[in-house]
Order: sequence, then C-alpha cells, then structure tokens
Amino acid sequence: MFGTDDQRDRWLKPLLDGRIRSGFAMTEPDAASSDPRTLQTTITRDGDDLVINGRKWWTTGAMDPRCAVLIVMGVSDAQAPTYRQQSMVLVPMDAAGLTIERALPVFGYQDQHGHADITFTDVRVPASNLLGESGAGFAIAQARLGPGRIHHCMRSIGMAERALELMCLRAQARAPFGKPLAQQGVIAEWIAESRIAIDQARLLVLQAAWMIDRVGAKGARKQIAAIKVVAPRMALGVVDRAIQVYGAAGVGDDSPLPYMYAQLRTLRIADGPDEVHLRDVARQELAAYNAAAQE
Amino acid sequence: MFGTDDQRDRWLKPLLDGRIRSGFAMTEPDAASSDPRTLQTTITRDGDDLVINGRKWWTTGAMDPRCAVLIVMGVSDAQAPTYRQQSMVLVPMDAAGLTIERALPVFGYQDQHGHADITFTDVRVPASNLLGESGAGFAIAQARLGPGRIHHCMRSIGMAERALELMCLRAQARAPFGKPLAQQGVIAEWIAESRIAIDQARLLVLQAAWMIDRVGAKGARKQIAAIKVVAPRMALGVVDRAIQVYGAAGVGDDSPLPYMYAQLRTLRIADGPDEVHLRDVARQELAAYNAAAQE
Amino acid sequence: MFGTDDQRDRWLKPLLDGRIRSGFAMTEPDAASSDPRTLQTTITRDGDDLVINGRKWWTTGAMDPRCAVLIVMGVSDAQAPTYRQQSMVLVPMDAAGLTIERALPVFGYQDQHGHADITFTDVRVPASNLLGESGAGFAIAQARLGPGRIHHCMRSIGMAERALELMCLRAQARAPFGKPLAQQGVIAEWIAESRIAIDQARLLVLQAAWMIDRVGAKGARKQIAAIKVVAPRMALGVVDRAIQVYGAAGVGDDSPLPYMYAQLRTLRIADGPDEVHLRDVARQELAAYNAAAQE
Amino acid sequence: MFGTDDQRDRWLKPLLDGRIRSGFAMTEPDAASSDPRTLQTTITRDGDDLVINGRKWWTTGAMDPRCAVLIVMGVSDAQAPTYRQQSMVLVPMDAAGLTIERALPVFGYQDQHGHADITFTDVRVPASNLLGESGAGFAIAQARLGPGRIHHCMRSIGMAERALELMCLRAQARAPFGKPLAQQGVIAEWIAESRIAIDQARLLVLQAAWMIDRVGAKGARKQIAAIKVVAPRMALGVVDRAIQVYGAAGVGDDSPLPYMYAQLRTLRIADGPDEVHLRDVARQELAAYNAAAQE
Repeated sequence: MFGTDDQRDRWLKPLLDGRIRSGFAMTEPDAASSDPRTLQTTITRDGDDLVINGRKWWTTGAMDPRCAVLIVMGVSDAQAPTYRQQSMVLVPMDAAGLTIERALPVFGYQDQHGHADITFTDVRVPASNLLGESGAGFAIAQARLGPGRIHHCMRSIGMAERALELMCLRAQARAPFGKPLAQQGVIAEWIAESRIAIDQARLLVLQAAWMIDRVGAKGARKQIAAIKVVAPRMALGVVDRAIQVYGAAGVGDDSPLPYMYAQLRTLRIADGPDEVHLRDVARQELAAYNAAAQE
Repeated sequence: MFGTDDQRDRWLKPLLDGRIRSGFAMTEPDAASSDPRTLQTTITRDGDDLVINGRKWWTTGAMDPRCAVLIVMGVSDAQAPTYRQQSMVLVPMDAAGLTIERALPVFGYQDQHGHADITFTDVRVPASNLLGESGAGFAIAQARLGPGRIHHCMRSIGMAERALELMCLRAQARAPFGKPLAQQGVIAEWIAESRIAIDQARLLVLQAAWMIDRVGAKGARKQIAAIKVVAPRMALGVVDRAIQVYGAAGVGDDSPLPYMYAQLRTLRIADGPDEVHLRDVARQELAAYNAAAQE
Repeated sequence: MFGTDDQRDRWLKPLLDGRIRSGFAMTEPDAASSDPRTLQTTITRDGDDLVINGRKWWTTGAMDPRCAVLIVMGVSDAQAPTYRQQSMVLVPMDAAGLTIERALPVFGYQDQHGHADITFTDVRVPASNLLGESGAGFAIAQARLGPGRIHHCMRSIGMAERALELMCLRAQARAPFGKPLAQQGVIAEWIAESRIAIDQARLLVLQAAWMIDRVGAKGARKQIAAIKVVAPRMALGVVDRAIQVYGAAGVGDDSPLPYMYAQLRTLRIADGPDEVHLRDVARQELAAYNAAAQE
Repeated sequence: MFGTDDQRDRWLKPLLDGRIRSGFAMTEPDAASSDPRTLQTTITRDGDDLVINGRKWWTTGAMDPRCAVLIVMGVSDAQAPTYRQQSMVLVPMDAAGLTIERALPVFGYQDQHGHADITFTDVRVPASNLLGESGAGFAIAQARLGPGRIHHCMRSIGMAERALELMCLRAQARAPFGKPLAQQGVIAEWIAESRIAIDQARLLVLQAAWMIDRVGAKGARKQIAAIKVVAPRMALGVVDRAIQVYGAAGVGDDSPLPYMYAQLRTLRIADGPDEVHLRDVARQELAAYNAAAQE
C-alpha cells in the first residue's frame, strides 16, 4: 500500500514467494508503545542516505533465519507536528551497525520466529528505502493496525476454540472420584462460560471486520479497540480453565496450553495495552454526548 | 398456537384489543421452577370439569386490575412419563376458590403489573378450558420459552443501554475534585466495559433470534440458554456501575436505576436460574464429543 | 468528644437514655460527599445566632419520629483554608425554616429510621449550638469516620454471615432434580467462596480496629480505606449468591436478603464511594516509594 | 517424624547438612493427585525386598544433581481399606530400574531444581526403606500437607509483595502521555486492589498457621483448604497486574514476573486443584448444619 515499485520488486515479491521474511521494529525499551511521542530511535538524512540510531526490542520476526529485512520506525523530524515526526524505513538485516543483542523469550519460551532486541549504530541505508513519504510513519502504523488487530483477534479466538476442545476431551476422559470431570458442576460451568465467551468475542470481531469493510478502519475505531481488549482476554480465560482441567499435564510441554497462554498474554500488551484501548472506547462513547452538549 | 377457537374468542381477542390482561401461574413456593417434576398443583378431571388445587406465586401480571384470566400449570396425570404429566388450563380470575393471598414485592418495589401469591382451593373450570391436550403442559411451556427469553433479553439490553446513557451524562455533568468523572480513568473504564459488554450481549441475542428463525427453538437451545444467562447478568453489571456513578442519587427514586436493578435481578432466577442454563450449555457443548466418542 | 457541657446536658443525655434520636445532615444533592469543597449549605453568623441555608439529603435518622436534633455540616467561612471552611451545628428538628421535603427510599424500601431530603431556609439557632469551634467541621467529620466505618464494616460482616447461614440451610433443604443443592458443585463452591471471603474481610476489619487502637484513625488511614471497600463489596457478593440459591423466595419479602442487599449497596457510596477509597489506598501505598525516592 | 533411626542416619542427616537433596514422587500421569485411589504405582513385598513398578511425574526436586533419594508413594495392598492401601518408600536415585525419562518444564521454564518424569521398572530396595508402617502412606502425606501448604502460601505472598513493589516502582518511573502511570486512576486502582488482596490473604494464612498450632492440621482443615485456594490465586492476580504495568518488559526475562507467574500457576494444581479444596471448604461449612439437623 505504501511502497514504491522498486521496494516491491526488491522485498515484497520474495516475501510473497516465501523466500524471505520481514520483521517489524517499532517497540523500544524506554518508550510507551501506545505513545509515539516517546520514541527515541532517530532516522537522520545525510546526503542520499538515511542514518538510523537507536534500540528496538520485541522486534517481531527478527529471529527467524529467513528474515532479510526490517521495517524500522523512528523520529525523522522532531520539530514536525506530533503525528508527523515519525517515518518508517526498510533496513536489510545485514546492514552494517545492526546488531542482534539477544533473543527475547516469552514466559520462558524461545519462539522460533521470535522477538529480538536490536541496536542500530549509524546504520546507513539509501534514502529510497523510506516507506511512503517522510513523516508518514504514524499514518502507516495506524493504517496497518486495523487489519493487524483483526488478525490477532482471530488467532486468539482460534486458540480459545482449540483450548475449549481440549478441555472437553479431557473432562470426558478423566474421572477422579469415579465421575467424569465433565459431569461435575464446576467443570461443566467452565465449559459453558468458555463457549459463551468465545461466541460473544467472535461476533464482536466479525462485527468489527464488517465495520472496517463498510466505513474503514477509522470509522470502526471504537470496534477495533473493543476487540483488541476482548479477544485476548477472553482467550486467556478459556486457556486458563483448560490448564486447570488438565492439571499437571496442563503446565508442561505435553499440552499446547501454556505456550498458548504465553502468546496470548503478550497480546494484552502489544499494539497498546488494554487500558489504553479501553480509554479509547470510552472517549468514543462519550464523544456523542459531548457533541450533543455543544449543539 | 395452542388454543381452540372458543378459547381465542373468549380470551385472545380481548387480550389483543387491550381490554383485558392475562397472568401466568407456573412457579410454586416448594417447587424448583427448573424441574417440572417438583410441581405440586393438581388439575383433576371431575366429569366435565377440571378441579384445581394448589398454590402459585410469582404469578406474573396477576396484580393488574385488568387481569381477567390466568394460565395455570399443574399435574394432570402423575402416572404419565415425566414430561407428559403436566397440563395448562385457563382459569378466570373470578373463579370460586381462587384467592389472591398477597402481592409480592421485588426488593422493596410493589410493581403495578406485579406478581401475586395465589391459592387454588377446589377451583372448578369446564374441561374445555384445557390449553392444548392433556399432558401438553411442558411442551407448551417449552415452545413459549424461546421467544419469551428473547423478549426478556431484549428488555435487559434496553435497560443496559439506558443505564449506560445515564452513566455517561452523569459522568460528564459531575466534577468532584475539579475534574469531570468522565475524565477519570476508572469511570472511563466502566463506560468502556459497559459498551463492550452490551454490544457482545446484543450480538449474541441477535444470533439466537436468527437461529430460532432458521432452525427453531429446539435447534437453538444452546444459544437460548446462553443469552438467558448473558443478558441479565451483563445488564446488572452496567446498572450497578451506573448506580455507583450516580452516588446517593443512584439508590433512591430520583433515578430509574435501582428499580431496573430489581427487575433485572429477578431475570437471573425466572424461567430457570443461571446455573441450570449454564449446565444446559455445557451439556450441548459436550454432546458433540459424546457423539464422536460413540461412533 | 467535641460538645460543650450545655450541649451534653441538652442532647447527649436524652440520646444515651434513648428518649430522643439524632440525625446527621452531611450529604447534599449537588456536592460530592467525598469532596468537602463542593458543599453548598451555609452557616452564617448573625449576632448571637447562626443562620443556616441549604439543602441536605440522605440525612440519616431524620425520618425516625423520635429524632429531635440534627448535626448539620455547612460552610461557615468560604475564605478559610479548604479544610477549615466547614462547621457543624446542632439544629433542633422543630426549628423554624427546617422542612422535611420527603423521605428517601432505598431500592424501594422506606426505612423506618430512614433518610430524609431536608431544606433549611433561614433556620436560626443560638451560636452556642456550634459543635467544637468554627471551622472544625471537617476535623470532626474525620475523627468520626474511623470508628463509624468499623461499625459499618462489622454490620456488613454480620449480614454476610447471616446470608451464608441462610444459603446453607436452603441448600440443604432444597433438592431439585433429586439432589440437595448443597451437593451440587456450583452451589458448594458459592458456599466455600462466601466463607473464605467473609473470613478474609473479618480479619482485615479486626486488623484495622487494632491499628486504630494502636496508632489512631490517622495512622490507620490505609487500613480504614481498605475495609470500607472490602466489607460491603464482600457482603454484597455473599447476599447475591444467597438470593440466587433462594430463587423466587430470595427477591421478595419472605427473606431478609433483598433488604440486606439494598442496605449494603448504599455502603459502597456513603462516606465516600469505593473508587475514592481505592485511590486513597494507592496513594498511601505509593507514599513509601515517593519518600524513598526523595531521600 | 516417620523415619527409623537408620533412615535418619542414612538420609536425614546429609539432607540437613545440605550434602544431598531429596525428591518427592507422588503424582502420576494417569491419576488424579487429589484422589489416592487412582494411584497405579505398586510397591510389592518380595522376601526382604520391596519391588517398585510404575511411572511418576512432577517429581519435585528430582532434576537437582544433588538429589540422592526419592520418597515414592505407591499401592502396597490393594485389598486394604481405601486410605490404608498406600505406602511410602525411600528409593536411592541410583537404584537399578529407576530411569529419568525427561525433565518437565513449567510454561517454557526448565527449573534447575525441577520436576522429572521417572519410570520405575522392578526397582528393588530393602524392606527397611519403608517410611513408617505399611499402609501409612496416605496418613504421612496428609500430615505433611498442612505445614507444606503454609509454606507454599507464604511463598505466594512473598512473590505477590515483590510483584507489588515492582509494580509501584515501575508505575512511578514510567510516564507515557506525560503523566506517571501511578497517577492514572486505573493503575492506582490495581495497586490498591493488590495491597488489599495481599493483606487479606496474609491474615488468612497467619490465622491458619495459628490454628495448626492450636488444634493441629486436622482441626484446621477448613482453614488450610481455604488458604491453598486464596494465596496462589491472589498472587497470580497481583503478578498479572504487574506484568501489565511493565508492558513488553513484563513478559520476557528482564523481569522476574513471568517466572513467578509460571511457578504460582502450578500451585493452583499441585497438592489438589482449587476446585477440590473449595469443595472441601464447603463440606466443612455445611457439616455444622448437618450435625444440627441430625440432633
């Protein structure tokens, strides 16, 4: 959507062909990911080059050995209006000055496509590597968020469905005290509450997707913020109940549940924490009353 | 759906014209409304008459002065299979032996269309007052439950929307400590959580209604049980938050909130308590796995 | 603690003898009870008299026919420092200009010792009716809060114990579907969670009372704020579960539960709402770190 | 408490001197740890020897290189009364037929003192390795549970205190959107709720410990069951809030929080899952009413 023809030839085609992977370098240790004004990485013009300095972590996909290019967000003009200060730039993984400091585990798991802590020291790329125009970083990030969040939410719902399936199977197979867990009132209630929570979250995600199609990501802002909170939170609840039904088998590596839990837990933080999205939902909800009050 | 032509002429027409009202006498003090086998009211054939004995309470609508007729559920044949033991019969309010013992308040409210505690002592009606055939009571009750529950759920959602609106207005109007409540993080989060919960519940109710239209109340049994739990519980949460935002004004008669709360609280009990519906959702959810296991 | 000898002879003795009752007039419709700066009732010196103007509601005890005197809080000096602007004054119920506008119900209940909405129009009392010195209103209110809150919390715990007892008795007496409710997993869990919540709340209240005895209400401020939130919230949860176990009998006047619920619900608002007390607990908790940071 | 003098010389002294470690082999993959009747490991007498066959997992401490001996629980007499069927036996780690199949991670963490999956194939030890008498296994396990659970609960509370401290420090250090997190209402409320929950849990644990000292573990059974549920659940809530305040730094290895979470999560399962303990609390609570009913 935002790349030039050259950029597409060089990176997008091999990406779509599956020959390379890309990573996304947005989050910084000392910045709040929900507040772009706190970014510290700089992208400075020097002749025909852009020079990048800073540190990024939770750089998604960077640990994958096929990862060939990063999209890096940084401050290109600290004097511009707040949401025009940032740019995005394509940086090859083999650029001089780019150092992977370490891989970042999640709850002890070292994901194979995982997250990296990366420093950029006078990393130099041609100015043509800029994604979109200078100052467009925030706008590109926003444009990508709607569909990106729907994607995360759908994965959350998929994990919750899988966890509920495992819970049901286990609850029928196990019978401590001579009665299948599935027939015990408390466990049955967990199953019911899980089904109800999944169905409600799915419908809300579908509604948000339908809103994006109809009025665009901006018009669906309240719905997108809502599902970003609802889907991972719901899935964590379902997975947690499934772990409890599995007992000791539910916290180790004989079930996929603890790994699901770890992945889902990051989603309550990534792309803005729950509390920021809830504040956004409230603001949108109250806007109608403010508008009415001013008329 | 179940009445004869005579019954329709005598009762349904004036009902639809708004000239009279009807009441529904199902619940008994010593029976669990979710277990029809515990009903104690009897409907005994005696020549061309039916003789009714027993006590009913939470008889919806019976306190309305326009109420002219009750639909009474009772045991007509204790030897029949469990779900064929009950019948429903039309009983005029002025029948000899029918005594309104008292009106039943909900919390401290005495509803004008309210609930009554009624005794039936050798109340005699012609056998033609039977609704449907003898033994059809449970089936009629079930047929009526699907649409009845959708109705209750929609009212719950309506009350929740009204409570959220009141909450938003109050949160903008009040500013203790010099800052509108609406701008305080905790109150804003209540507003957001309320909006999200309402939207999720509404979508689930709409889905259940659509299922009833497509596959009937029986096929939508899981969905109907789910919304019966979700909608009143959600609405109670929203109303409770609104009460908290209103402060002292929220518990008295200057706001509709405590009356909403009282009405909604009964919906977690009426037509079967939450815990019975959750068990039903679990049973339906597990049925798929049982079926698979038996193949 | 704050009255003169004359005030004690005139009011305190008959109070202690049970011949009269008193009421407390603090809350105003347009003020946040947690922010004394928003009070609008005025207490103005005029020669040897004090003249009171304003409106008070949720005036505890004022509807009791034996109520002979009110303690009224109002602004005596709007130019003084914030917490020295208010005074308290004794006002006989039969004072000219004091009008009981209406009784205030709680969730439909009209309490016999209940709350009143009262207007004061040029109500005149001798200056000797001042309680403590001029400007001491806030300090007196604070001094009274610690023990007053302990009292409310103990009543909350007593109600919760009573509700749990009723829940247990009912759960053993009722057996829908042929099995006592007490043996159903979900109901048993409600009983267990109720017992655990009551015990935790009681220990916290006892600790707070012990702290008040040891270091005074000011030193125990965090503990007092904590129990003010914990005890009514806990009790509401227990009473709500008891209502659910009682079914239809739990929402009407055949059980004390809905009235308990209504009373308890006001305690989450009276003397400052939960959210203000939680903010206070947080502030106290963080104070240790702030102090450390400044050293 | 249960060992012979020989057993103490051989194992207890080096244990207390820190020269060796021991492991505890109770849990089995196909048994519910809360129901001893489902144990499948056998301890069979053969002349002067005991022969052990079976599989144990979540064998605490077995992965520690200093671990020299396991206490193994197994069925010694399947014909005895239910709670006299099990015995405990000391098994040296180097016994022939004892195979460590694998280490068991918790979430993604491989604990250094960690859990092992172990098979016992015709493992032979002298009959003098029996701990206590034959059939005493369940009684020994019970005797050990009270103090063991207090220990786990105190560790839970310690972790919660540490997490709250981290949360406060982080909330003061971080200021996205220009205002410290600690001053944002929602975060402040998390801090307050955490403090209140910790204090309540601590008091309950102290009460249980005091009960054990006064009336023994059996008399304090309800209190022990209660704290087993309360303390880990409370601590998980606090740690989860701390993770949220830390953001991306809260799910990786730059903070101790996710490891705490993983450890605490196992405590809701180990030594009987929450739901079994809650059922036990309910049973004890209801016992008073049953006793009264039978008089």
